[in-house]
Amino acid sequence: MSSLARESASIQSPWSPAPRGLEGIVVANTMISKIDGKAGKLIYRGYDISELAGVIPFEAVAFLLWVGHVPNKMELEIFRKSIAEHRQVSDEIKEFVISAPHEANPLDVLRTAVSIMGLYPPPKRNPGDSVLIEDGVNLVSQFPTVIAYFQHARNDEELIEPRTDIGHAANYVYMLTGEVPTKEHEYALDSYFTLLADHGMNASTFSARVTISTLTDIYSALVAAIGTLKGPLHGGAPSKVWDMLMEIRSEGNVTPWLTSHLKNKERIMGFGHRIYRTEDPRSKILKKLAKENSDPKTFALASKVEEEARRLLSAEHPERPLDTNVEFYSSLVLNSVGIPTDMFTPTFASARSFGWIAHIMEQLSDNRLYRPASEYVGPLGLSLPKNSDISD
Amino acid sequence: MSSLARESASIQSPWSPAPRGLEGIVVANTMISKIDGKAGKLIYRGYDISELAGVIPFEAVAFLLWVGHVPNKMELEIFRKSIAEHRQVSDEIKEFVISAPHEANPLDVLRTAVSIMGLYPPPKRNPGDSVLIEDGVNLVSQFPTVIAYFQHARNDEELIEPRTDIGHAANYVYMLTGEVPTKEHEYALDSYFTLLADHGMNASTFSARVTISTLTDIYSALVAAIGTLKGPLHGGAPSKVWDMLMEIRSEGNVTPWLTSHLKNKERIMGFGHRIYRTEDPRSKILKKLAKENSDPKTFALASKVEEEARRLLSAEHPERPLDTNVEFYSSLVLNSVGIPTDMFTPTFASARSFGWIAHIMEQLSDNRLYRPASEYVGPLGLSLPKNSDISD
Repeated sequence: MSSLARESASIQSPWSPAPRGLEGIVVANTMISKIDGKAGKLIYRGYDISELAGVIPFEAVAFLLWVGHVPNKMELEIFRKSIAEHRQVSDEIKEFVISAPHEANPLDVLRTAVSIMGLYPPPKRNPGDSVLIEDGVNLVSQFPTVIAYFQHARNDEELIEPRTDIGHAANYVYMLTGEVPTKEHEYALDSYFTLLADHGMNASTFSARVTISTLTDIYSALVAAIGTLKGPLHGGAPSKVWDMLMEIRSEGNVTPWLTSHLKNKERIMGFGHRIYRTEDPRSKILKKLAKENSDPKTFALASKVEEEARRLLSAEHPERPLDTNVEFYSSLVLNSVGIPTDMFTPTFASARSFGWIAHIMEQLSDNRLYRPASEYVGPLGLSLPKNSDISD
Repeated sequence: MSSLARESASIQSPWSPAPRGLEGIVVANTMISKIDGKAGKLIYRGYDISELAGVIPFEAVAFLLWVGHVPNKMELEIFRKSIAEHRQVSDEIKEFVISAPHEANPLDVLRTAVSIMGLYPPPKRNPGDSVLIEDGVNLVSQFPTVIAYFQHARNDEELIEPRTDIGHAANYVYMLTGEVPTKEHEYALDSYFTLLADHGMNASTFSARVTISTLTDIYSALVAAIGTLKGPLHGGAPSKVWDMLMEIRSEGNVTPWLTSHLKNKERIMGFGHRIYRTEDPRSKILKKLAKENSDPKTFALASKVEEEARRLLSAEHPERPLDTNVEFYSSLVLNSVGIPTDMFTPTFASARSFGWIAHIMEQLSDNRLYRPASEYVGPLGLSLPKNSDISD
């Protein structure tokens, strides 16, 4: 590092430089969720997720994340009704989804649909009105509609209109499959939505907070979050677990398949997490839901992969956490309720959108622009040749 | 802070918590640009911007930012030609811009157009092909076209097609105004593009890097950056300087207007910057360009506002930096070459898009997922009532 660069860095802060990827760096105080990676716990607003998932409806959890307390019966009814009544998208969004190229990535379609919504923002209300809750409801209620419309449009099927008389998870399955799900399937997806709704300062949530911190609009922040979630290092991988299971195919093939892949240093999908040093608390619940809803052969295959991968990975890397992550059994749960493989990540986005809104509201309530520094490590003091032949 | 929260924080890192807004925290090493806030210098790849702006064409600066060295004559010709030939947008983008609501914010239109481009990604090339440079050229070449199309579409005017025989700045003015600019105007806007092309780890650039760090696509990263730039704490303010000058109107009104606004604790637009502790080096050059291109009365008015604001602000806050920032004289330069006030921020986006691409390429060249931490400061250990009437 040149002396100039060092001088400028030392002016900036005693903390610089931060660890790569800001790992472990606290970028915000939050009252929304807490991950205890050592104990394997995930807390929403004071409640352990195992006390929420499948115990109270997903909409009650969404209300908890946004408002800060578990709703009473009347609050929940109003919130559910509001979400249900905002499911219908505008004609412009419907036309866009119908005309989107069939081979497009569904996340790109969702990102663009939300960006188009931002061209038609709702009329300004009086200052002091809780604009954000209403905007938030309007936005996240429409994620499932956009996703399901695209699913049918790309298959040249008739679109299925959202219902207002069923819950968020049930309506999602209904719009995708045309059938109101069984109680068991509704329970499984409702629990999935709760489990995936928030997870501390993950990359997409962080990007939503960075974007909104310039005091731009909520649509821009959600669009940033969707684009960030799309990446395979974040939300873009759950379908790969499913593809892996389908490739392994039979219990007898588990050990040879894993052994040969590990030998070739190929990554086994669905294992390990940057934060949890023990079992992901979501994974435990999802495994139970997978057992209850997947067909027994698939569940047996997945369990065998889990067991064998754990054994083989721990022999190779005894120091690393080797448990299944949230993606592993998610893939079985989502498949069992009828969600197509490439709609796994959009479904994740639909759940996480509730967390994004909570974080956008929290960021705005005590905003400070995210404007970090970088360390210049390039050359200094260069000059153009005196008679450069590219001069203007 | 509860003892549990403290324990979890101490596991994470000795650096946590970071200063609010990550101020001064180095989140990446970069070879693209260096801001020396104390000396008032901005360096691109080793060159002081005063040695670049107006000295070599903007496209040569863009090449420098992307590739790392000043192009020779042949490299520059190829790069210019490539940018010029990619200006034409697809039919889908054209149709979208024409059908966008006339009253939409142009930044929302630009964000959506780029998101739509992401629905039709170019065909995959062989691994090893420099996909990103070609994608980057394709993308940033089209920003001016989208902006200018929308300018004409919302005024029910005929669209003006891009030209391939003139430079990036000249074509931008041509598309907006229908006339190829004078040499002086071309020089002014070309310099503006150079000065605004990059600026360290500003919020939009940071958001582009956070988004791409999940290994999502380049469109998602640019869409995030545009939405972030839109906020008034970042790129959304230059038109406000112009509005302020138009409101002050005459030199005689400068002192009374400023005095009454300062008395009411209202913000004076175009002064101060979080990083520069002395004059913004871009501001000095922009002032010269404004003097050469604005009508003399407007320039005299702006100079008087600068002088008086500096005097009044320093009396009130002697400890704060009081110089004009990049927005102040930008507004005069952009107005002088014929850019409508609400196209100032899109023009900024069009210049900065070259920096965004450089940072996306740099991030991908040595990627690490941005996944910071948050500090949970809410309650712990809550339980639902045993017989909750909202249970499923």
